[in-house]
Amino acid sequence: MGQTWWEIPGGVTAPQGFRAAGLAAGLKPSEGMDLALVVSEVNAVAAGTFTQNAVKAACVTYGQEILAAGHSVRAIVCNSGQANACTGTDGDLDNRAIAHLVATALEIDESQVLTASTGVIGQRIDVSKVEAAVPSLVEQALSAEGRNAGPVAAKAILTTDLVEKTVAIEADIDGTTIRLGGMAKGSGMIHPNMATMLGFITCDASVDPAVWNGIVKRAVDASFNQITVDCDTSTNDMVLALSNGEAGGKPITADGANASLLEDMVQWACVYLAKAIARDGEGATKLMEVTVNGAVTQANARLMARTIASSPLVKAAVYGNDPNWGRIAMAAGRSGVDFDDRTLDIALGSFRLMANGRPLVFDRDAASTYLKGDPIAIVVDLHQGDAVGVAWGCDLSYDYVRINAEYTT
Amino acid sequence: MGQTWWEIPGGVTAPQGFRAAGLAAGLKPSEGMDLALVVSEVNAVAAGTFTQNAVKAACVTYGQEILAAGHSVRAIVCNSGQANACTGTDGDLDNRAIAHLVATALEIDESQVLTASTGVIGQRIDVSKVEAAVPSLVEQALSAEGRNAGPVAAKAILTTDLVEKTVAIEADIDGTTIRLGGMAKGSGMIHPNMATMLGFITCDASVDPAVWNGIVKRAVDASFNQITVDCDTSTNDMVLALSNGEAGGKPITADGANASLLEDMVQWACVYLAKAIARDGEGATKLMEVTVNGAVTQANARLMARTIASSPLVKAAVYGNDPNWGRIAMAAGRSGVDFDDRTLDIALGSFRLMANGRPLVFDRDAASTYLKGDPIAIVVDLHQGDAVGVAWGCDLSYDYVRINAEYTT
Repeated sequence: MGQTWWEIPGGVTAPQGFRAAGLAAGLKPSEGMDLALVVSEVNAVAAGTFTQNAVKAACVTYGQEILAAGHSVRAIVCNSGQANACTGTDGDLDNRAIAHLVATALEIDESQVLTASTGVIGQRIDVSKVEAAVPSLVEQALSAEGRNAGPVAAKAILTTDLVEKTVAIEADIDGTTIRLGGMAKGSGMIHPNMATMLGFITCDASVDPAVWNGIVKRAVDASFNQITVDCDTSTNDMVLALSNGEAGGKPITADGANASLLEDMVQWACVYLAKAIARDGEGATKLMEVTVNGAVTQANARLMARTIASSPLVKAAVYGNDPNWGRIAMAAGRSGVDFDDRTLDIALGSFRLMANGRPLVFDRDAASTYLKGDPIAIVVDLHQGDAVGVAWGCDLSYDYVRINAEYTT
Repeated sequence: MGQTWWEIPGGVTAPQGFRAAGLAAGLKPSEGMDLALVVSEVNAVAAGTFTQNAVKAACVTYGQEILAAGHSVRAIVCNSGQANACTGTDGDLDNRAIAHLVATALEIDESQVLTASTGVIGQRIDVSKVEAAVPSLVEQALSAEGRNAGPVAAKAILTTDLVEKTVAIEADIDGTTIRLGGMAKGSGMIHPNMATMLGFITCDASVDPAVWNGIVKRAVDASFNQITVDCDTSTNDMVLALSNGEAGGKPITADGANASLLEDMVQWACVYLAKAIARDGEGATKLMEVTVNGAVTQANARLMARTIASSPLVKAAVYGNDPNWGRIAMAAGRSGVDFDDRTLDIALGSFRLMANGRPLVFDRDAASTYLKGDPIAIVVDLHQGDAVGVAWGCDLSYDYVRINAEYTT
């Protein structure tokens, strides 16, 4: 597809009418910012997706209720000190108290504040520290600097991520300049007890809530749901997306060309952030992009791509610069997708390793040299149909084990 | 259950009427035995289970056909040099040629010989080397030493496993001495390009084929299907079980007390071998036994136990002696089993870490000391029903990465 938008600076505050802030409230055991705020100056339509884990943090069940009720949203508050999962009714009350504090300071309704948390499981958030910090946080967001504080908020949501993950793009839709911003955190279960993939998207398009909801769900399926660092899913994962209409212009109400362009923008931004998360995976030294072509359904293609990207043996081979196509065939085969292994093709970058289920002669040294680069492309073709799926992951290194085996206490 | 059988030596040759052999045919690039044979002196009823991987080795599709046709079986030949997967029609012909060579030497029908392979994917077996070796292999099996060569065969099926995995037990069923033997190989995808979990069970009970088939399938579900080293499934996995009736006594034809005792024996032997595989997992320093109690269905309990045992974060925490119960809760939650996280209990050995979804105060130093032992017991209770599931795995160490990242060429 021809890309009809361009990158701009600013992250989540790039779209009109969005403000942000970040500060250190003292929630983290280590130094650094641990409280972030995103504010829309006007009501925004909100869509979101949440962890499929049966063990859900308080912010997850709270956010699901807010979105199910169809409330318009004004703010997202995120702490990166405690996950507030496995904290029972106390955790629910703490979460609601934080929403209430932010709502009061912003003079809005509590039901217009979404919450997100990441950090240690099973520990309560010290609400008194949040209470002490919220006035400064809101003041900062509403000040002049709050208009450009997207990158600050992107830093405040991190736990032990190595880099900030933020993006913003702009397009012209029917004569109206539409901006979209985003930030994310996560690199698997990043640190002993640390968890969570978070994604926040802001947009100034005027868009029908149902259309926005569909756009966001499909974009998340193609992006955040297609990355894998380990097999593990946090109790706190969520993607929240707000669109506040401040760009003006005709509302996007149905599935026409404008909705399609907006969807392409949301998907591009989500894929950008998702890849940034995979590349920052625990111990990762390179990004893997796995494409499955020729499947019967997109769901099958995506499932197989995810399975290959998450195979510890494929990941370890990529780390070791080993063009070990047998492991790719094995991982494709165990994905649960039904296919005829005698029509399977596998390529690694420009190296064709297997065709019609049979090994090809290839230059192993050159392929190994290719694997020393970044990113690494793995392409599988099933020759069954036209559906395509892409997934992203990272290699498996000694550092993954080191990071996750360190004793927490 | 009260155990009414006892261990004996001999492995797969412990039951009456079974013989075995193992030798070096030169199939492996390294030194050592790489060809094993198990022979029943008379026709045996055969049952088996095979890899669910869509990419299947030639021996897998061949064995599935033999068993589906209901042939009685006289021999199993296993090579540990090449997996003979992704070798196309040539691989099928090579596999059949090996069955034919063994059948000719034993003067039996080709359809009475099952085959198994493990080793490098995508390389053909050198059938001329097998042809040169089969006369000695059969001679050895039919000689006096062949009656006691179970441990030799158990060594010949290994690739880079660190230890042989063999077991034999004996019971009195209605006045008849019944013996059961077994051997297995596998420790995940053991070595670059190496694969495969293999299990072979021999028994001298006289048993109805349909009863035997049910017994073996249920035992495999409770044992080999409940171990995990990594998430990966080989193209060559199989369990084959022969029972030849040489013990004499009344045939076991229906699901009475005798069938139930035989089933307990088969399951015990399979669990014994499965645990031996998990303990010998790549880079493993200890065995993990995960029990899920209080589930609604056994399938749910087993699925959750497997998910916890396969979580890289749980495995890394066990390696690091870290009593990190949040990861156990996370893995339980992402298993796909529906449950209320507010009734979840988690224990590590005798340490109760979580009750009713809330953390308990426990002695972290003592729990960490417990984790330095072997095996490690993780027990989860869902308080939903009466179903129980057990799974076995190993910890995730630096050596797992080292072993799997080594460059193959």
